[in-house]
Amino acid sequence: MPLVRIALRQGKSATYKRQIADGIHQAMAETMGVPPADRFQIITEHGPDDFIYDPDYLNVKRSDDLVFIQISLSAGRTVEQKRALYRKAVEVLGAKPGIRAEDVFINLVEVGKDAETSKSNWSFGNGVAQYL
Amino acid sequence: MPLVRIALRQGKSATYKRQIADGIHQAMAETMGVPPADRFQIITEHGPDDFIYDPDYLNVKRSDDLVFIQISLSAGRTVEQKRALYRKAVEVLGAKPGIRAEDVFINLVEVGKDAETSKSNWSFGNGVAQYL
Amino acid sequence: MPLVRIALRQGKSATYKRQIADGIHQAMAETMGVPPADRFQIITEHGPDDFIYDPDYLNVKRSDDLVFIQISLSAGRTVEQKRALYRKAVEVLGAKPGIRAEDVFINLVEVGKDAETSKSNWSFGNGVAQYL
Repeated sequence: MPLVRIALRQGKSATYKRQIADGIHQAMAETMGVPPADRFQIITEHGPDDFIYDPDYLNVKRSDDLVFIQISLSAGRTVEQKRALYRKAVEVLGAKPGIRAEDVFINLVEVGKDAETSKSNWSFGNGVAQYL
Repeated sequence: MPLVRIALRQGKSATYKRQIADGIHQAMAETMGVPPADRFQIITEHGPDDFIYDPDYLNVKRSDDLVFIQISLSAGRTVEQKRALYRKAVEVLGAKPGIRAEDVFINLVEVGKDAETSKSNWSFGNGVAQYL
Repeated sequence: MPLVRIALRQGKSATYKRQIADGIHQAMAETMGVPPADRFQIITEHGPDDFIYDPDYLNVKRSDDLVFIQISLSAGRTVEQKRALYRKAVEVLGAKPGIRAEDVFINLVEVGKDAETSKSNWSFGNGVAQYL
């Protein structure tokens, strides 16, 4: 059910981008119980003028390899699951494609106020709300 | 009030894209009471490396004609309205530009926890919160 | 903590875009207590076919200089803070780069149902949820 938007600076290879997409999906599957087939991701690349980040906020030293990963998902994950996701994402993306931990920015957007409401906010095709 | 993001694979015509935009807006107007003039939509096209979807999740057979329609809107729609939106969108987009029902992916993002809170989250210009 | 997506029509200069990004960030800092270093922004440009807006909804006369500013942020801001943000954004962007008040569209997306839940929805790097 999550819809994932991955934004990064222009110039990376298709393989590099694929590894990010694979990695974040693996992390979500391992820590939040997202089914392996529940995978929907959009990647966008941006020029230097269009990709603005603070290189130091909260004392995290970011570089142009920064990746914004914004995940629209149903509410209801626990704090422990979210923490586990962040940890795992950094581990997996650090291994492949080799992103520094400081450059993995993740933001979760809960699409409804609670798990029940969120269920009605997804249609995966065929004109139905599959989670209801 | 909704802000609609439509994402699809590169290579469709302007007419094709316009029909998607027209169609989803029509569906929202007919099923959720969105005013005809309350229309704000951003369309993005993506290459094959940047547009990732499972071709089979929940047994829905998706193709490269898949369209992600992500709608930021105020909370408060009923489950019945949401269901009606999904049904109508598939009907309208199936007629024009002729998208298979399986290829219409819709995600609603409620921008506040309830209808009241959501009202304060929109400024349509002039520096005011028009819904308050 | 906010992640800001700025969308506008193609063809503006880098300076023009930078001034929008600077201006909205300044407005957020001055009205919502967003730390100056808490700055993360993605700008996208769109062709005429991909950037659809009503030129008159709610009697606001919009032009092709319209800017969509969609701000993902934690819940918990007051109505007064939100109103102040909209006012200030229009003032700042009116001065530089000189955008008409009618062309500043802002939508806030609260990423969790309340301030507490929202805190767990941000990882600024290093695999941790820095606000917990």
